[in-house]
Amino acid sequence: MQLQQLFSPSVQHTLDVVGIFVFAISGALLAVRKNFDVFGIAVLAEVTALGGGLFRDLVIGAVPPAAFTDLGYFLTPLIAALVVFFLHPHVERIQTGVLVFDAAGLGLFCVSGTTKAYSYGLNLTASATLGLATAVGGGVLRDVLANEVPSLLRWDRDLYAVPAIVGATMVVLCIHYDTLTPFTSGLAVVTAFVLRLLAMRFHWRAPRAWNRRSTVTEE
Amino acid sequence: MQLQQLFSPSVQHTLDVVGIFVFAISGALLAVRKNFDVFGIAVLAEVTALGGGLFRDLVIGAVPPAAFTDLGYFLTPLIAALVVFFLHPHVERIQTGVLVFDAAGLGLFCVSGTTKAYSYGLNLTASATLGLATAVGGGVLRDVLANEVPSLLRWDRDLYAVPAIVGATMVVLCIHYDTLTPFTSGLAVVTAFVLRLLAMRFHWRAPRAWNRRSTVTEE
Amino acid sequence: MQLQQLFSPSVQHTLDVVGIFVFAISGALLAVRKNFDVFGIAVLAEVTALGGGLFRDLVIGAVPPAAFTDLGYFLTPLIAALVVFFLHPHVERIQTGVLVFDAAGLGLFCVSGTTKAYSYGLNLTASATLGLATAVGGGVLRDVLANEVPSLLRWDRDLYAVPAIVGATMVVLCIHYDTLTPFTSGLAVVTAFVLRLLAMRFHWRAPRAWNRRSTVTEE
Repeated sequence: MQLQQLFSPSVQHTLDVVGIFVFAISGALLAVRKNFDVFGIAVLAEVTALGGGLFRDLVIGAVPPAAFTDLGYFLTPLIAALVVFFLHPHVERIQTGVLVFDAAGLGLFCVSGTTKAYSYGLNLTASATLGLATAVGGGVLRDVLANEVPSLLRWDRDLYAVPAIVGATMVVLCIHYDTLTPFTSGLAVVTAFVLRLLAMRFHWRAPRAWNRRSTVTEE
Repeated sequence: MQLQQLFSPSVQHTLDVVGIFVFAISGALLAVRKNFDVFGIAVLAEVTALGGGLFRDLVIGAVPPAAFTDLGYFLTPLIAALVVFFLHPHVERIQTGVLVFDAAGLGLFCVSGTTKAYSYGLNLTASATLGLATAVGGGVLRDVLANEVPSLLRWDRDLYAVPAIVGATMVVLCIHYDTLTPFTSGLAVVTAFVLRLLAMRFHWRAPRAWNRRSTVTEE
Repeated sequence: MQLQQLFSPSVQHTLDVVGIFVFAISGALLAVRKNFDVFGIAVLAEVTALGGGLFRDLVIGAVPPAAFTDLGYFLTPLIAALVVFFLHPHVERIQTGVLVFDAAGLGLFCVSGTTKAYSYGLNLTASATLGLATAVGGGVLRDVLANEVPSLLRWDRDLYAVPAIVGATMVVLCIHYDTLTPFTSGLAVVTAFVLRLLAMRFHWRAPRAWNRRSTVTEE
């Protein structure tokens, strides 16, 4: 289990809470846009922030999941929901700032998710997959509950999965070559973070199926 | 585990089956309204009735979940589906009656869900959260499968989460002060039930985000 | 556990991979139709192929689920996604062929899902239910992620659940009468498969609720 102690526990916990907070903001903002009430905002904040980690913990058998044992993990999204509830026009105005934090959360979660899955005995491919699921799962659940097509799957959104895949892959390569340290982990976080920022800046997109007639965009 | 034996097992089981039945009715009615076939009606009845408890059991590690070990829990929604299949215009006509029973299910499930989660070692906050999830989870799954925005999240529906939150909170307060008895548990059930009835009667609603322009109601 | 060894392990594994592949094709095709990018295609292929088994494994407590421990299970949907990505007009053209394979997957999964659930100690009813869930769960998740009403639930689709229910029921009857052999298992697979083919050929459909005014088809 020493793998989980890449960073000192308090540093790791702080990073997790930061990631949870920014994901919760994105969930709460969507809830406002969908005209949900204050409880809908809180629910969507919780689901977005904790859904990915909850799925990972169920899959690796880490029950009860951290989302239900760590009070800080549970309360952070509620604070984010309150912030959005009272200040949402201001939060909207700093939307770019929110997206930058969301990119940071993506980087943090893909690395911590991969590490935790590996420490529970999964193989390298499965660990990287669960790292990806940890990073993007909350957003998918958020969109499903809001009755929208998950933005993860849409072609007209900037790359989101690829940075997380790269980060998770870097971690499992480091594990494989026995070079996983706080430094290399941090490098993986930063790489995923920067890739996501670049994808947003230059509107990188993934290709759709070959021969797809692009006029058919009834989605 | 003695916590679970608040009521005699047979009383508890009867209450559970009643809650399952009324939730299943609400799922089956939505299926009819969505024009689903008889299997769709049965699936939505099962999911609505057992989804919340299934989620709770997966989170606390109570596998296989009660939904799959207790034949009565499994068959009750099928009976509800048959009732709706053959009698749905009559069931629709007594829609208010159905909503009263649904409120009773809400009260029963938020209390029994909280109690079960605590008996599996979760802390008080997590137990109350899982009590809430037990009570409202099935309805959320029902709406997701029917491809609708969960009515739990919509601002234009009467309060649904709050009564369950109050009931679950009463239970954890009683646990904290060591006063959980069949009487206080029953009081929590009745409080949640009555609050929900009042919310329906007086159309209590929760606020949306401040400064939300209410003209934007394209949802 | 000898129940799981109905077929030789390598035969069983091959059958599983075939079922996974054809389900993944159906997920990837829907992703193309929804205009998703290449990652959306891969995600939908994975979810469709592995979602049903993943749900079953979480319910019976078989963690980490086979989807995350068997590299072949994980890579097969990616290959299916690539096939669809590059060849989808051709795959579309052989849509009937795809549906035949999908029917084969339905037959295989309802039998293997039931058997695995029983080998983990569930009762016969629960085992058959999980067999059904294994066979149809991936398709339901596929449709939910694509923001569509699950075709499993729609009245205007040919029977899909019934063949799986029949196959799963045959398995539990064989278990009950102690006559489960590779031959009888194979018979259950073939029965479900043929029933599904007949349902497609003759457009068998399940009834909707009695007295349902069929003019109301706004779904």
